[in-house]
Amino acid sequence: MSTAKPSSIGQYLLERLYAAGVGHVFGVPGDYVLGFYALMAKGPIQAIGTTREDTAAFAADGYARCQGMGAVAVTYGVGALNTVNAVAGAHAESSPLVVISGAPGVREQREDPLLHHRFGPFTLQREIFDRITCAAVVLDDPVTAFRQIDRALAAARQCCKPVYIELPRDLVATAGYLIPAEAAEPPGSDQGALAEAVAETVELLAQALSPVVVAGVELHRRGLQDTLVQLVERAGLPVAATLTGKSVIAERHPAYLGVYEGAMGAETARSRVEQADLLLLLGVTLNDMDTGIGTARFDPQRMVRAAQNEVVIHYHRYPRVALADFLTCLARAVQLPGKAPAVVAAAEEAEPFPRPNQPMTVARLIGRLNRALTPDMIVVSDTGDCLFAAVDLRVHERSEFLASAFYTTMGFAVPAALGAQVARPDHRALILVGDGAFQMTGTELSTHARLGLAPIVVVFNNGGYGTERFILDGPFNDIAAWRFDRLGEVFGPLDGYHAQDEEGFEAALTQALENRTRPSLINVQLARDDASSALKRLAAHLQASVGGGEPAGSAGRSPS
Amino acid sequence: MSTAKPSSIGQYLLERLYAAGVGHVFGVPGDYVLGFYALMAKGPIQAIGTTREDTAAFAADGYARCQGMGAVAVTYGVGALNTVNAVAGAHAESSPLVVISGAPGVREQREDPLLHHRFGPFTLQREIFDRITCAAVVLDDPVTAFRQIDRALAAARQCCKPVYIELPRDLVATAGYLIPAEAAEPPGSDQGALAEAVAETVELLAQALSPVVVAGVELHRRGLQDTLVQLVERAGLPVAATLTGKSVIAERHPAYLGVYEGAMGAETARSRVEQADLLLLLGVTLNDMDTGIGTARFDPQRMVRAAQNEVVIHYHRYPRVALADFLTCLARAVQLPGKAPAVVAAAEEAEPFPRPNQPMTVARLIGRLNRALTPDMIVVSDTGDCLFAAVDLRVHERSEFLASAFYTTMGFAVPAALGAQVARPDHRALILVGDGAFQMTGTELSTHARLGLAPIVVVFNNGGYGTERFILDGPFNDIAAWRFDRLGEVFGPLDGYHAQDEEGFEAALTQALENRTRPSLINVQLARDDASSALKRLAAHLQASVGGGEPAGSAGRSPS
Repeated sequence: MSTAKPSSIGQYLLERLYAAGVGHVFGVPGDYVLGFYALMAKGPIQAIGTTREDTAAFAADGYARCQGMGAVAVTYGVGALNTVNAVAGAHAESSPLVVISGAPGVREQREDPLLHHRFGPFTLQREIFDRITCAAVVLDDPVTAFRQIDRALAAARQCCKPVYIELPRDLVATAGYLIPAEAAEPPGSDQGALAEAVAETVELLAQALSPVVVAGVELHRRGLQDTLVQLVERAGLPVAATLTGKSVIAERHPAYLGVYEGAMGAETARSRVEQADLLLLLGVTLNDMDTGIGTARFDPQRMVRAAQNEVVIHYHRYPRVALADFLTCLARAVQLPGKAPAVVAAAEEAEPFPRPNQPMTVARLIGRLNRALTPDMIVVSDTGDCLFAAVDLRVHERSEFLASAFYTTMGFAVPAALGAQVARPDHRALILVGDGAFQMTGTELSTHARLGLAPIVVVFNNGGYGTERFILDGPFNDIAAWRFDRLGEVFGPLDGYHAQDEEGFEAALTQALENRTRPSLINVQLARDDASSALKRLAAHLQASVGGGEPAGSAGRSPS
Repeated sequence: MSTAKPSSIGQYLLERLYAAGVGHVFGVPGDYVLGFYALMAKGPIQAIGTTREDTAAFAADGYARCQGMGAVAVTYGVGALNTVNAVAGAHAESSPLVVISGAPGVREQREDPLLHHRFGPFTLQREIFDRITCAAVVLDDPVTAFRQIDRALAAARQCCKPVYIELPRDLVATAGYLIPAEAAEPPGSDQGALAEAVAETVELLAQALSPVVVAGVELHRRGLQDTLVQLVERAGLPVAATLTGKSVIAERHPAYLGVYEGAMGAETARSRVEQADLLLLLGVTLNDMDTGIGTARFDPQRMVRAAQNEVVIHYHRYPRVALADFLTCLARAVQLPGKAPAVVAAAEEAEPFPRPNQPMTVARLIGRLNRALTPDMIVVSDTGDCLFAAVDLRVHERSEFLASAFYTTMGFAVPAALGAQVARPDHRALILVGDGAFQMTGTELSTHARLGLAPIVVVFNNGGYGTERFILDGPFNDIAAWRFDRLGEVFGPLDGYHAQDEEGFEAALTQALENRTRPSLINVQLARDDASSALKRLAAHLQASVGGGEPAGSAGRSPS
C-alpha cells in the first residue's frame, strides 16, 4: 500500500509507477499534461523528452521489455493519438506499457466546450484506447482514482499488455481516497490437470528418440527463462526458438539450435525440428511470422504445446494449466538418467573479413556482426529484411534481442533501443534498421546523442522498401536517398560512416566499437536486389511449392 | 454513374476518387495494400510516397483543403494506426480526407489467424476509425462495395469530414456489382424560417450604426468565399476573420479588418468588433482558439449567428436554415443604398529592414515576411507561437492560409504544405514552423525536394516548446538543438540558411525568394523568451484580469 497520509492523484500514480520499477517516463509535454510533468520533476522519476509521441511509446515499450514495465506521458488528442500504432504494437507483442494521457479538467469538460485538441466527445479517446489496451481508465473521481490506478497497473503486470490512464489536469493535485488494497489472487492451475499433463509429457519424453523444445516469446514475457534452462539441462534436450522468442535462451548455450521458422529458417534448426519425433512447444505463439509464413511443420500428433493457460497434447487439451506451473513441474520431473546433455555444434562464421574490393552483402554483414557481438550488447532490430537477417545473429545473454517481430511495425528500432539503453545503462545497443524504417523514426537518434548514449546503428541501405520488392515491385517501393551518415551535421554528437565495401565497413565497425561515448551510424550500401538468406530461402520454398512461379506473386502472405 | 462494364472494386474506387478531383494519393505502401498501389500505377492517379503515414495523412489533408478532397493509402495496422492523430485532426478541422487502408483478404481472415500487423479482432481498426470519421466502411462484399464507396465519398463531400475505406487485399481485383445511383437529395432549408431570418437580419443591419461581419472557417469548407465578398461589398460591411477562418476573405481586401480573437488579436480588429452594435457571425466555430482562449466578446444581444444549419438571432433560433442558403439570400437582399463600401486602412509594416547588428525577433520576422508575400504564395503554419504570430500576416488571395488552428497538432505544416503544393503547382508554400514541431515531421521536406518543389521554410527556433514555457516552464520544455539549415547534407537538393540577425535573415530571404527550383530553409535564431504580439497580449490581458498574477499559472486554458 501507499504512504499513510493520502497523497494527490498525480503523486500516487507516480509512486505506484516507481514502485513497479518505472524510473523513467518517456514523452512530449503539452498543456493538458504539463502539471503532471511539473509534479514528476519534483520526484525521483526522470522524464525523458523525445522528438515525437510515437517514438516515446516505442521507447517505453523497449524499456518495458527490459524492466517489466514502461510508461509514456503525453497530452490529450494530438499527443495520445500519435501513440496509437505503437500501443497497438505493444498489445500485439505483449509489452506492459502504461500510457498516461493528460486531459482537459473535469470542470472544464462540464459544459462540453470546444477546447483545442478536441476531436469529438471527450469520451472518444478512452474508447479508442480501450481497443488496444487491457485496461483503460479515466481518473475523473478522487474517490476511485487510487483503486483505478492499482487495478490498471496490476492488469499491465498480469496480462503483459498496455494500459491507458487518463488524468484530467485539474485532478493532478487533488487528494485521492485511500482504500484497502484488493486481495490479488492470481487464478491458479487446476492441480489434477497439471499433474496429469506433466505425467503424460514425461512419459512421452521418455519414449522419444529425438525430442526437441521450441521456445516462444511467452517464456520471456512471463520471466521463465531460467526455468527453461533448468528443463533443457536436466532433460538433455536441444532447443530452438521462434522468431518472436529469439534469445529467450542464450543463443550461445550449447543446447541451442537456432531460430526455427519453417522454410525461412536455417538448416540446422529446421532439420532437427522437422525430424523430431516429439516437439515440446513452450510459450509459442502460432502467428504467421513465427511459423515462417505458414511453412512451419507443427504436426499435432508429435506435439506437446504449453500455452499461457492450457496444455495441448496431440489432440486433447488440459485447460487451466498455467504455463509457469507446467514448466516448473516438468523441469522438476524430467531428470532423465542416461541422457547426455544436448550439445549442438555452433556454426560460427569462419570466412575472412574484409576481402578487398568486395561490395557489402546482407549475408557478409551479418557474418561480421556475429563476430562483433559481445555479452554487453542488446540487439534491437527494425522490421524488414534486417529482421529476417538478424535470425542468423547469435546474441549472447538471454533476452537481449528486441524487435517488433510479430506486429512488424517499421520505425521501431531506434526509439525502442533508446528505452532499452535507459533501462540497462551497462549495455550497448546494436541497432539494425533499413533505410525506409530509418526515415520514419531515425531522427530520434538525436535523443540518444543528447543523453550521451552510444548505440551502433547499422543502416541496411538498399534504396527502398526491399522486402516489398520481393512481393510486388513498382515505383512505389523507391524512396528518397538519404546520406544517413551525415546526420551528425544536423544534430550531434554523432559519428557517421558510409560503408560501400567490406574494407569500408570493417574500418567503420572498428571505430564504432572503440568509441563508447557517442552514437555511431554506419550507412551500409547494399545492392537493390540483395536479401537475407531467410528471405531467399522463403522465396525458393514458395517457388518450389508452386512449381516455379514468380516469387513475387506467389508470396501472397509475406510481410512487408 | 460509372462505366458500362462492371469494373473491379479497386478500379471503381480509383475512378470515383479521380472523378471527385483526387489526382494524387499520398501514402506508404505495405503488403496488404500493395495490390491497390500496383493498380493505381496503371491509371491516371499519381501515388506520392512519403516517409511516414502520419505525414501522408497531413499531406492529404492539405491537399483536401485546396482541392475539395484528398486521399491517403496505407497498409493495415502499422500503417493505418499511424494516421489516427492526423485523421482526428482532419475531423476536428473539417477536411474531407479519404483514408484507404489495405487489409488481410476476406479469405485470409476466415479462420481468424494470427497474421502480422494484427492487434486484435480484425474489426477493431474500423471501430477506431468509426470514431474519427463521418463514415467507416469495409469493402468485404462485392455486392455492396460500389454502393459503399459512393456513400463514403458522398459523406466526405457533404460533411467535410474524413471517411475510412478498408479494402481487403483479395477483393481489389474482384468485380463489383453495379447498382443504380441513389438519388442524392441534400436536405434543404425550411423556406419559411429562411425568409424570416433573412428579413430580420436585413432589418437589424438597416438600423445598425456600426455593424461588423465575423467570418469563420465553415465558409471556406462550404466554398462560400465569393458569396461572402458579394455580401460585404453590396452592404458596405467591414469584415474580420476568426483564427481558423483566417484568409477566408482575401486579407488585402479593402473591407478586411484582420483576425479577431479577443484579447489575443490586434487592436484594429478588436476595437471594431467589440464596439460594433451588430455582429454578423458567419460560419464561425465557437472553439477556444477562435475565441482567444475565452476572451472574445460575443454578446448574443447584438449578434446574428449563422451556423452550418441554423441561424441564431439574439436569443431565438431558426433551425433548418442552411448556411449557404442564408448567405446567398442575405447577399441578394442587403443592397443598402447610401452606405459607402467599407474601407479599412491597411496597417503595413513601414519600418526599415534589416537594421545592422539586430538579433531577430518574432515581431520583426513577421513584419518582414508580410512585405515578402506575393499573390502566388500559400502560407502554411504549424502549431505554436508561429501560429499566433501568423495572425499578423496578411495573405493575398482568399484561402491561402492553412493551419491546424483549432486541433493544434504539432508537425502539421511541412507535410500539409506538401499536399497543398501538389494540389496547386502554380503556388509556392511559405512554411512557418517552430523548432519543436519541425523535429516531429520536418524531414518530410525530403519529399518536397524529391518532387522538385520549392517551399520556403522558416523555422522559429527558440530552443524548445516556447508556448508551453509561457504556461508552465520546466526542463521538460527544452529540446535538442538541431542545425536545421544543414539538412541538405542528409537529403537534397535543399538550401539551408542560419539567420542569427536581421541582416542574415534578409540575405537568406532574398536568396530563397530568388531560388524557385528547390526547397529553402531558414533557421531563424530567436531569443528563448521572445514571443508573438498575440501571446504577449493574451498574457497581459490575463495578468490584468487576475490582478497581476503570473501569466504562467493563470493561463490555465492556453494551448500548447
